[in-house]
Amino acid sequence: MAPYLKDWRGRYEGVALAVVRPGSTEEVRATVAWARAHSVGIVPQGGNTGLAGGATPTSDSPDGPAQIVLSLTRMARVRKVDRVAMTLEAEAGCIVEHAKQAAVEAGRFLPISFGAQGSATIGGMIATNAGGINALRYGTARQLVLGLEAVLADGTVVRGLGGLRKDNAGYDWKQLLIGSEGTLGIVTAAVLRLAPLPAERELAFAAVASPERALALLERCQDAMGDAISAFELMSGPTMEIVVGHLGGRAPLASPASGGGPADWLVLIEVADSAGRLRGRLEGALADAADAGVVLDAALPESAEQTRRFWTLRESVGEAERRGERSVKHDVAVRVSDVPAFIRDAEAALARLSPALRTIVFGHLGDGNLHFNVVVPRNGTGAASVADEAVTRAVHDVVARFGGSITAEHGIGQYRTGELLRLKAPEELALMRRLKRALDPEGLLNPGKVISGEPPSGWSPPL
Amino acid sequence: MAPYLKDWRGRYEGVALAVVRPGSTEEVRATVAWARAHSVGIVPQGGNTGLAGGATPTSDSPDGPAQIVLSLTRMARVRKVDRVAMTLEAEAGCIVEHAKQAAVEAGRFLPISFGAQGSATIGGMIATNAGGINALRYGTARQLVLGLEAVLADGTVVRGLGGLRKDNAGYDWKQLLIGSEGTLGIVTAAVLRLAPLPAERELAFAAVASPERALALLERCQDAMGDAISAFELMSGPTMEIVVGHLGGRAPLASPASGGGPADWLVLIEVADSAGRLRGRLEGALADAADAGVVLDAALPESAEQTRRFWTLRESVGEAERRGERSVKHDVAVRVSDVPAFIRDAEAALARLSPALRTIVFGHLGDGNLHFNVVVPRNGTGAASVADEAVTRAVHDVVARFGGSITAEHGIGQYRTGELLRLKAPEELALMRRLKRALDPEGLLNPGKVISGEPPSGWSPPL
Repeated sequence: MAPYLKDWRGRYEGVALAVVRPGSTEEVRATVAWARAHSVGIVPQGGNTGLAGGATPTSDSPDGPAQIVLSLTRMARVRKVDRVAMTLEAEAGCIVEHAKQAAVEAGRFLPISFGAQGSATIGGMIATNAGGINALRYGTARQLVLGLEAVLADGTVVRGLGGLRKDNAGYDWKQLLIGSEGTLGIVTAAVLRLAPLPAERELAFAAVASPERALALLERCQDAMGDAISAFELMSGPTMEIVVGHLGGRAPLASPASGGGPADWLVLIEVADSAGRLRGRLEGALADAADAGVVLDAALPESAEQTRRFWTLRESVGEAERRGERSVKHDVAVRVSDVPAFIRDAEAALARLSPALRTIVFGHLGDGNLHFNVVVPRNGTGAASVADEAVTRAVHDVVARFGGSITAEHGIGQYRTGELLRLKAPEELALMRRLKRALDPEGLLNPGKVISGEPPSGWSPPL
Repeated sequence: MAPYLKDWRGRYEGVALAVVRPGSTEEVRATVAWARAHSVGIVPQGGNTGLAGGATPTSDSPDGPAQIVLSLTRMARVRKVDRVAMTLEAEAGCIVEHAKQAAVEAGRFLPISFGAQGSATIGGMIATNAGGINALRYGTARQLVLGLEAVLADGTVVRGLGGLRKDNAGYDWKQLLIGSEGTLGIVTAAVLRLAPLPAERELAFAAVASPERALALLERCQDAMGDAISAFELMSGPTMEIVVGHLGGRAPLASPASGGGPADWLVLIEVADSAGRLRGRLEGALADAADAGVVLDAALPESAEQTRRFWTLRESVGEAERRGERSVKHDVAVRVSDVPAFIRDAEAALARLSPALRTIVFGHLGDGNLHFNVVVPRNGTGAASVADEAVTRAVHDVVARFGGSITAEHGIGQYRTGELLRLKAPEELALMRRLKRALDPEGLLNPGKVISGEPPSGWSPPL
């Protein structure tokens, strides 16, 4: 048991009744059930590379409960990489480096890089909201998490592995678990956002006289290269000295200001990009797509006026719809790769309801977010041929079959409260209610919207 | 009162006792106090452009409480734009378009674009986690929120306007409020992340035969242009028909497949970037910085081996430190613009403690995240000249003065629990405890880490 009880820095050594190594989410749940029955504390652990002792049990104390270490390292699989949706699904115990390799094999990039990535796990990375050198450009682990599965202290398994890029259907409970260091729940699996693999990458060391000058250099680089900056690392002279002392060799730059000795302050800059010469590349991509039969025709605007017109055509959809026939509005999200199949199935479901229904389909394909609106024709007396609610239920049932969201961006409000209760998993509804009760026990904030804190009927916590 | 009681789509009309228009966070708090004293429900409202009736009071019902509308539109200021930190601070009632203009005036980009941005407010955008056409590249509102101030149902004002890019000191409570549609708290102000203003922007309409082909085109564009894709919008033929019917003019492309009529499916692609010809631009930026006296010297690697060496120099810091003299580790974050002043003040604080203390300073300057480690020399008998705790308190006190975080990425674990309790605002500690109690009432998950659910001593809710 020894390696599980000591932290990587050797600062802490704890006490545990046992190390439990579950091989599945169900075994994690069973472990939580056992621990709860015996009032035993649980210390979730991934690669045990944490720098604050969060994954190490505490030493015996008269106040706290006895503890077990719950190691996720047997749950180590990369389950799926989706190239076009740019997502990767992995189990909590998957080594970060392995996930990064799987992404590269698919021509994609898992944009997080930190020292311990060869031992650290996806679950630990999420539980500690890891940062590292690429956070500047891609954000911390939080920004990469599109989906989570977790076991709560009462044995509830909450599942949100749909991999949606947009989902505004209720409280985003996964945000609570990210960065909570295993104190609010145990992450068992995740879907992560990937980025394009940068085609071009350049690096430089620069010597500057002071942190102020480093900041001035950052601002210049932002202006000159903007989004392409993927790392901007500061090192003091003494930091470089101990590194060179350890590695051997010479420091990369000598500072004139310090008489040719190591520079007072150094900056390591990485820029990386997959673009450049945009118009040409866009024309090229479209021409190639036309050759491959993917595109039928394409047009680039030839003037600022035409550019405005292009955007106006997209942006006027809402206004055009409002002035035309009334439609039943939907704001759904499915996995990016499922969009074509979703459209086909939803059109089929509507055709079964009534052949007279017509759709106005548009949306943010890159996010898997469609505005799938349905025009319901009126009969001679002006009555609708199909009830709005029946149309919405038909569309949302297809969304549910795809594991999608009934609202990607517009929200629940009062419009979708019924559909949320009908379609959201009872575990998620119960968690949402618990949060609402914890923050607004008297139900005074925006009553009747989203969800109430009332205990769910017909559902009780598993333990 | 009428315009406040009806939603933008004209679908809902609610009932309210009054519309309250506070001019400050304190007036929001006072309104919540009044509502709580009278058991009256509160409906927060920004630009009232929501698409799900979330900002409109419900109609009178015998079950629910009487309601007031709390309009944030008088709190409309952009408070600050920070060019190098790339952040913008605004009040909740600030119109999104105004915030975007303020960013452009500073040569920066607030990367969210949606139809209602001319009326919608920052607070509403956050409460509904707005998406829009740039979410594909920059994420939804959630990814833009670096800081929040909010009033909870019990009158607690939680403040997190530090604008930190990284902060792992405790539960990220702001994530709970984002997208909760005013049901968990009332957002009163926010700090948003800005992006570089794209220098180059290209647009195209493409006709494709099916959603599958649109997806194939997306994948080709991802491979050819990667991160540069800033919008990828799908429109069905009938959608384009109603838009052209409404706007007049002609559709941009005719589809051969449909006999020269409007295309069956259209894709509007935007690519935008601020980079291209990276090595040349990096060299140019460094040369300009040298001319301006910002940079003393710079080097780009001439080989793959040298590139590896550059990165190794940065990545070996941890290992070099471990093999050298023991240091007291810190993992702090301050606003990017405050890094130089923080380093100066922290060095001064340490010098006051003991002139023998030496620092090893390095970190992610672009994130405002420094590893500010302190080597404590031993005296003749091997005892430390200064206690570790005194060193840490001195450093963290400076962090607190700058409104920074005592852990940007490593977390609280068991290492920083005491410092969290000493330095985190009591309002935030109370909120964290409430969340911990709500999810793990028996305190079995990772006991002794981060925070316990015990009621805070010496602090009680304001109402």
